[in-house]
Amino acid sequence: MLRQQKFGVEPWAIRETGLNLDDLGPAESVFALANGHIGLRGNLDEGEPFGLPGTYLNSFFEYRPLPYAEGGYGYPETGQAVVNVTNGKVLRLMVDDEPLDIRYGDLRSHERVLDFRSGTLTREFEWVSPAGKAVRVRSERLVSLAQRAVAAIRYTVSAVDQPVLVVVQSELVANEEQPSAVNDPRVEAALHEPLRPAGHFLDDSGVTLLHRVERSGLRMAATMAHDIDAPDGFQVHSSAHENLGRTTVTCRLLPGRHLRIVKHLAYGWSSQRSLPALNDQVRAARSVARYYGFEGLLDEQRRYLTDYWSSADVEIEGDPQLQQAVRFALFHVLQAGARAERRAIGAKGLTGPGYDGHTFWDTETFVLPMLSHTAPDAAADALRWRQAILPEARARATQLGLSGAAFPWRTVRGTECSGYWPAGTAAFHINADIADAVIRHVQTTGDADFERTTGLELLVETARLWMSIGQHAPAGGFRIDGVTGPDEYSAVADNNLYTNLMAQRNLSGAVAACERHPGGAGELGVDADELAAWRDAAEAMVIPFDDKLGVHAQSEGFTSHAPWDFAGTPADRYPLMLHFPYFDIYRKQVVKQADLVLAMQLCPEAFTPEQKARNFAYYEQITVRDSSLSAATQAVIAAETGHLDLAYDYLSETALLDLGNLAGNTEHGLHIAALAGAWSGVVAGFGGLRPLSTGLALSPRLPQALTRIAFRLRWRGRCLLVEITHEQAVYRLLYGDDLELRHHGEPVTVPRDGSATRPIPAPEAVEPVHQPAGREPLARRIRSGQPGAGLV
Amino acid sequence: MLRQQKFGVEPWAIRETGLNLDDLGPAESVFALANGHIGLRGNLDEGEPFGLPGTYLNSFFEYRPLPYAEGGYGYPETGQAVVNVTNGKVLRLMVDDEPLDIRYGDLRSHERVLDFRSGTLTREFEWVSPAGKAVRVRSERLVSLAQRAVAAIRYTVSAVDQPVLVVVQSELVANEEQPSAVNDPRVEAALHEPLRPAGHFLDDSGVTLLHRVERSGLRMAATMAHDIDAPDGFQVHSSAHENLGRTTVTCRLLPGRHLRIVKHLAYGWSSQRSLPALNDQVRAARSVARYYGFEGLLDEQRRYLTDYWSSADVEIEGDPQLQQAVRFALFHVLQAGARAERRAIGAKGLTGPGYDGHTFWDTETFVLPMLSHTAPDAAADALRWRQAILPEARARATQLGLSGAAFPWRTVRGTECSGYWPAGTAAFHINADIADAVIRHVQTTGDADFERTTGLELLVETARLWMSIGQHAPAGGFRIDGVTGPDEYSAVADNNLYTNLMAQRNLSGAVAACERHPGGAGELGVDADELAAWRDAAEAMVIPFDDKLGVHAQSEGFTSHAPWDFAGTPADRYPLMLHFPYFDIYRKQVVKQADLVLAMQLCPEAFTPEQKARNFAYYEQITVRDSSLSAATQAVIAAETGHLDLAYDYLSETALLDLGNLAGNTEHGLHIAALAGAWSGVVAGFGGLRPLSTGLALSPRLPQALTRIAFRLRWRGRCLLVEITHEQAVYRLLYGDDLELRHHGEPVTVPRDGSATRPIPAPEAVEPVHQPAGREPLARRIRSGQPGAGLV
Repeated sequence: MLRQQKFGVEPWAIRETGLNLDDLGPAESVFALANGHIGLRGNLDEGEPFGLPGTYLNSFFEYRPLPYAEGGYGYPETGQAVVNVTNGKVLRLMVDDEPLDIRYGDLRSHERVLDFRSGTLTREFEWVSPAGKAVRVRSERLVSLAQRAVAAIRYTVSAVDQPVLVVVQSELVANEEQPSAVNDPRVEAALHEPLRPAGHFLDDSGVTLLHRVERSGLRMAATMAHDIDAPDGFQVHSSAHENLGRTTVTCRLLPGRHLRIVKHLAYGWSSQRSLPALNDQVRAARSVARYYGFEGLLDEQRRYLTDYWSSADVEIEGDPQLQQAVRFALFHVLQAGARAERRAIGAKGLTGPGYDGHTFWDTETFVLPMLSHTAPDAAADALRWRQAILPEARARATQLGLSGAAFPWRTVRGTECSGYWPAGTAAFHINADIADAVIRHVQTTGDADFERTTGLELLVETARLWMSIGQHAPAGGFRIDGVTGPDEYSAVADNNLYTNLMAQRNLSGAVAACERHPGGAGELGVDADELAAWRDAAEAMVIPFDDKLGVHAQSEGFTSHAPWDFAGTPADRYPLMLHFPYFDIYRKQVVKQADLVLAMQLCPEAFTPEQKARNFAYYEQITVRDSSLSAATQAVIAAETGHLDLAYDYLSETALLDLGNLAGNTEHGLHIAALAGAWSGVVAGFGGLRPLSTGLALSPRLPQALTRIAFRLRWRGRCLLVEITHEQAVYRLLYGDDLELRHHGEPVTVPRDGSATRPIPAPEAVEPVHQPAGREPLARRIRSGQPGAGLV
Repeated sequence: MLRQQKFGVEPWAIRETGLNLDDLGPAESVFALANGHIGLRGNLDEGEPFGLPGTYLNSFFEYRPLPYAEGGYGYPETGQAVVNVTNGKVLRLMVDDEPLDIRYGDLRSHERVLDFRSGTLTREFEWVSPAGKAVRVRSERLVSLAQRAVAAIRYTVSAVDQPVLVVVQSELVANEEQPSAVNDPRVEAALHEPLRPAGHFLDDSGVTLLHRVERSGLRMAATMAHDIDAPDGFQVHSSAHENLGRTTVTCRLLPGRHLRIVKHLAYGWSSQRSLPALNDQVRAARSVARYYGFEGLLDEQRRYLTDYWSSADVEIEGDPQLQQAVRFALFHVLQAGARAERRAIGAKGLTGPGYDGHTFWDTETFVLPMLSHTAPDAAADALRWRQAILPEARARATQLGLSGAAFPWRTVRGTECSGYWPAGTAAFHINADIADAVIRHVQTTGDADFERTTGLELLVETARLWMSIGQHAPAGGFRIDGVTGPDEYSAVADNNLYTNLMAQRNLSGAVAACERHPGGAGELGVDADELAAWRDAAEAMVIPFDDKLGVHAQSEGFTSHAPWDFAGTPADRYPLMLHFPYFDIYRKQVVKQADLVLAMQLCPEAFTPEQKARNFAYYEQITVRDSSLSAATQAVIAAETGHLDLAYDYLSETALLDLGNLAGNTEHGLHIAALAGAWSGVVAGFGGLRPLSTGLALSPRLPQALTRIAFRLRWRGRCLLVEITHEQAVYRLLYGDDLELRHHGEPVTVPRDGSATRPIPAPEAVEPVHQPAGREPLARRIRSGQPGAGLV
């Protein structure tokens, strides 16, 4: 058990008992509800105190200036930042003459439960006002997975032992004050009160507020309506103002009696639709919500989640905390992507304002593999979003003097928002990562229609990009010089191995897709010469290898660099980038996050088992894991190379990253990719899942601490259940046709409606690998009683 | 003759006839007067019209924010920018009821002359007011080289053919309005009206204004007094206000009569001295000026310059324009450094606000070699300034995790002001460049006292820096990874050859200096182990060489990079950095400015003649010369490798850079290093001067176009005159003891008060070298009638 754990351990929920005012921020992220379209942070109903108030609509943003001390050609001068939109979560409560504020009076009990099967956040507490009046409050909150524009709160207040007069003020609040996150006054100004009032309406059903964002021009609407169950004699009145909608319910409660309010919320935004259209749209959604009622919405929510878990659940026996953490991860990844519907899945999902709400490469690399296997429609939609921003990506490529499409390193809606090109624009691997997600999605789902209509164009345009970035060198080999790989502690290097292998995969994948869809390829202007060029480049790709050391080089020359002085770097100097200059970090052998090791996971066939073992040992000793995007990959390759207990430690770290606030910044939002990494730690790590060219392949093997794991996988119209113990693996088809797969390299046929059982081969003994001093897995350090260290 | 030439060609002056309002800005830089302490742009006396008004005091600056879209450890957040100080140049003239403004009325004639021997800017013009009243005005302006706090203007106005009433308003103007140069409102705000009034005084002698700069806290004083020669009945009155001092002279002039005003100006600033002290200081300086009178100041000025030219002049026969340009260059380099006196010599001298008034590496690399040979006290003082900012440089090294001192890439007063680290902080070669200037200065002057008190500390602290930047690699060799050389079209590369060779020179030079000054070395904590370590590192320095191509590599891997597509780059896409992203420029074989070629000039003994020839040919074909810091070096190595006519073209380009406004940005100030490069183009190029370990060495040889050059050199207490024709070189000692030197490798003894004559060996035939398409020397292109292209 991790000592830092703050939440009760149970298999299907996160239960918080008591309340720590210092930890409100991280808990608001943990308790965030979202459906990929709307996101509500787990703020308290009464609005205050808060860590960071937050309500988000996917892709609803404002422009912000990107300043440079010294500019350069092609530097983006305008960024995009998610906007904290109208807050509909607020239900303030007055108890007699005292506002309910948990910082005052006496909080007798306080419990919050995030339930992974009902998709609700439930809160119950009993509070005694300074004047001695006790109330019990229960609120249930959901963001509907079935009705993407809808959220709802069922709020119940009861008198405990004396009669009380209660006033509930249910509100819509626009432009609420926030703690400042930036120190640049221009940016501050751009994001201060970003919502310009554009209309406020009061009708007999509720209140609607319309706003417009100044520079991005986006328009939004939020509306609320209430169903009230109260003792006779209650009074209700509502009002609407530019930045405030309020419905006030007043009633007297005798002991044991309650007031119950169901607050129906609906949100909408558009860059195209008029304000009247938006106004109508959210009222319609609100009507749907009231038509269902809270119980109806709840039923739909449970149904949606039952369906999800039936093909996504991961069971872990032997570590209840890990079981909980992995389900927490699966739940939040679903919340981030479920109903994004051709909008981006951000690095923080819709749980916080971190990274300005941007989407990076890790969506394709960490999140989409899981979604393709568990919620394939969401994965397809995320890639359709990439297709939708191809015009911006093509324009960016043109601006950079390149062909095809150059996707933004970070963005809300398609344009490059990265203000530091060596770790932004130069990280061209994002384009191969998108291509890889396409290839994997098509391989996993067998969705030829998706490939033809969406995947093909993405593959072709990214392949073209690589042809313009790389070159056939006179001395031989297709070189990709001056780019940055996943490891952000190196930059602008020649022949980054990860990038080269992924570009190779991109080029080969584009060839294969064009061959499968000659008509579509022709429409995209691909001819035989272009295909031949892609093939040639892929075949000639430079793969840097250090013969002396017998390991691959992360990039050309990397292994000649000085080693980082790990022994001379105390714990409080991590993460390194906050304590050392880039120039020093870049020129030394120190790795922020899996780079070459990630290549071994994503391109497994490019390495022999011996190379994987040697490479892992070499890079493990110089990887400091200052990024949350590393432990999952280290878990996977540790497992593959026989370091099963180390894999378990890394899996625990990525799974517990936000529940344990191990990176110290969960307040700004959850690390969705790291959470998705918990899935891959289990499925690709202990399950050994690899998307090989020969088809589905697994190599299951458990660490000592676990007795059984089971996971479900969607695979080309099937759902496969994999149950692993130390002795054997059972492959069972929950539905779908007979399946051929490989178990530790041996072919296995799983019959329709049946199963196949295979023994787990005994692992070979391996030499232990080592991490830099003080950078062993956090889980291990925490278990041994040491404090956690920061990741970012 | 260059067609773009705008100035009359004469040997000792720049004469402008007529006035082109579109070219006011560049002419203001060309006609700037300075003494290294005070700088006055060549603005018109009447203040308007102007290109860019400018009055500067060396090192008088304000802080400005350096913003980043994405910050990083060690990024400087505060920059420094020179301030346009109180303008004392203004003398407005009212002719009857019409203010003299050359944009109105009729300008019958207008001539300005910058005289290199008197150090004056003289202006004469005849103007007829819209009402038909003609006046003739003559102004003579000087910034005293002898009295560093003093400037003076003798202003004479005459009536031509009718009686006129004239009013002259002689002013001190603070915070004059300027065209905006930045687009960042925060920076704009920081530099808007930077002078805060701190006192204004009117006495019977004149007017004094005191100001303070808000954030830097610097204080300044400017004062003026007038001597007036006018027909009887004239009136004078003065007034002082916070930002304005004014002395008004009114008189009636009959035809042929004149009013003459001598305006004495004195400036002072301090970070330490009080305002009353500054107030007194400038009044004292003003008294000195009045004591001398204008003629007295002029006599001193001529004397100072006669002395300078006697040991600095360069005579060129066969190209009068080049003769003029080279003297123009020598004059302005002197103006930049003469009286800087332990303050920086900026990239623009004191001629304009370009680069925020910063000083870079090019002062040590281009300017100081010339000054060590022609004005050694100024060179020594510039290096003493470096010594003075050692505390800041040591603190910067510590911040960066390095030892010794890390000098700022750009600064006004010592702290790093570079906002883009790959071409700033990473360009550590500046430290070796400073060390090189020390070594060269000591070698040139033989000044052991300077070496002991100043040079030693600079050498030791920079040597220590290199030991912490580089490493002895396990595979052998002392490597310096991840740094940026002079060529700004590559960055953050491993083993940049220039950097490695210069670091080697730095380490060896430090060893030698410590051995000569063991006591001083001991005080700096240098022991035998440290000396041994420097020796080892210098000996083991990695020198990248491409065996296949048979040329040195600018840095490791450089010659594997893709060639730039020169054929596909039209002329209007230069300079490349304004039209292509850094990522693309950095990863291709394209060179902005001499880098490896500069190494061949500064470290001549590290290359064989064959290597120099091959290297020059290889790099010449990929060097686009988008920097003004390249042509001079290309001239030198072109000459050495036998391309004498090409050397002549490059010399012409660097010498004419500002007179021809070839870079298009002369308005922002002169390119002092490029002008100093004109000296090295002659002396190191056609003279073949090299500071070899064996002593003074020359290898004179002329291009076809020139018939004779002669230059003077100071060398260890001597002044050597070198006269070169196509047939022979005559070495004559103007003063000083017998001198041993090498002439084309052969030892020659020049006797005291005598000379030695040697024949010029016939040059070997060489294969022509080629430049990228469209990037041949500008001089050649302009001669052939093509328009100039931009350099920056």
